[in-house]
Amino acid sequence: MAAAAAGPPPPTPTPIPSMTLPENPAANAIFVRIRLAVPTDVPHIHKLIHQMAVFERLTHLFEATQENLTTTLFNSPPFKSFTVFILEVSRLPFPNDRHSVNPNYPSVTQMVNLDTNIEDPEAHNFQVDSDVVVAGFTLFFPNYSTFLARPGFYIEDIFVRECYRRKGLGKMLLSAVAAQAVKMGYGRVEWCVLDWNINAIKFYEEMGAQVFQEWRICRLTGDALNGCGGGN
Amino acid sequence: MAAAAAGPPPPTPTPIPSMTLPENPAANAIFVRIRLAVPTDVPHIHKLIHQMAVFERLTHLFEATQENLTTTLFNSPPFKSFTVFILEVSRLPFPNDRHSVNPNYPSVTQMVNLDTNIEDPEAHNFQVDSDVVVAGFTLFFPNYSTFLARPGFYIEDIFVRECYRRKGLGKMLLSAVAAQAVKMGYGRVEWCVLDWNINAIKFYEEMGAQVFQEWRICRLTGDALNGCGGGN
Repeated sequence: MAAAAAGPPPPTPTPIPSMTLPENPAANAIFVRIRLAVPTDVPHIHKLIHQMAVFERLTHLFEATQENLTTTLFNSPPFKSFTVFILEVSRLPFPNDRHSVNPNYPSVTQMVNLDTNIEDPEAHNFQVDSDVVVAGFTLFFPNYSTFLARPGFYIEDIFVRECYRRKGLGKMLLSAVAAQAVKMGYGRVEWCVLDWNINAIKFYEEMGAQVFQEWRICRLTGDALNGCGGGN
Repeated sequence: MAAAAAGPPPPTPTPIPSMTLPENPAANAIFVRIRLAVPTDVPHIHKLIHQMAVFERLTHLFEATQENLTTTLFNSPPFKSFTVFILEVSRLPFPNDRHSVNPNYPSVTQMVNLDTNIEDPEAHNFQVDSDVVVAGFTLFFPNYSTFLARPGFYIEDIFVRECYRRKGLGKMLLSAVAAQAVKMGYGRVEWCVLDWNINAIKFYEEMGAQVFQEWRICRLTGDALNGCGGGN
């Protein structure tokens, strides 16, 4: 979860007491939707993964192509294998379209009242249609706990674009995965965080997550993987 | 990976120079087989998981039942979801049975020469048939790297019973998973290790694995999972 540092405070307009109405929060409302990804989302997913690599200072590991994403995702029914939720925002309510009647996952929609208007400098890169832009995504898949003898979900990525952070959207994404886990009778939802990402760690702990200090991730890849796997 | 500390050295027999033949290593040879688990392995898998919980000092988290293992494993073709390899040892060569002709995974068999005979005090608890006992297992499943846009394997558990450690059997199990990953064109094999398990970390690094210091595992479970997932 990429939780950005707080930006500068918004400019404060000079009040004109006799003419000021109480602020109407709905004036800055946005509509937020979480839905299953479809193959036409791949260009946006690809750009979001790259932004995440930049945030995590790991662009040297970024090798994803749109073609690889297309061929490796979407091969199984959702939730049985690799699954992507797309987070969309819109100024207008979402229509009753094919996403809201998907039998595998009816989309989750919520109205969010904002203190200030959001300026999205990259809206043109993430536009779905005239009113809708992609603001983030999460990719997750089943894992397994032998101690519970039950499946869970592992979240590989959860990412919200910078201008949409700190508005509860990351929490919506995480809650959507957790709700699906509960619905399926799964025992856990797990993910990883970089130890220097203290904003994210605080956010996760506030949501009730445990952060384990003594486990380390090990990885075989490249020549070491081929060398180890070639012995058989 | 549970790599036990070195045991006491074997007793040294007094040599009788004029009558001693050169030591024949094959006298202590064992045959080792890695094969796909089948439902009748569940009682052994259950006992192995419990032994691993004891080794990891995590018995307070152990809730697995044979029934849960039976209903949650074996629901998908191997390698597409949760997959278990069983590690067997025998004094005699393995027969050409149903395991060695499994179209999903022909078993891997190897002869291992030992310095000394292995005393297995729990053989009766892990007997498959008169000559064969279960010595360990690994449970793994596909994971996904968005940076590579490719699947990999995540090893949830890799465990060798105490009396069979330090004989290369853990390496055989890890190599079997790595070989399957290479065969499927997967990019990585990953797993976790406890930071105090320095024998295992040394073993993994010698096999070419990277051990990442700055990632931390997060987990939502129990009431926190229900609370987070109930918001949708």
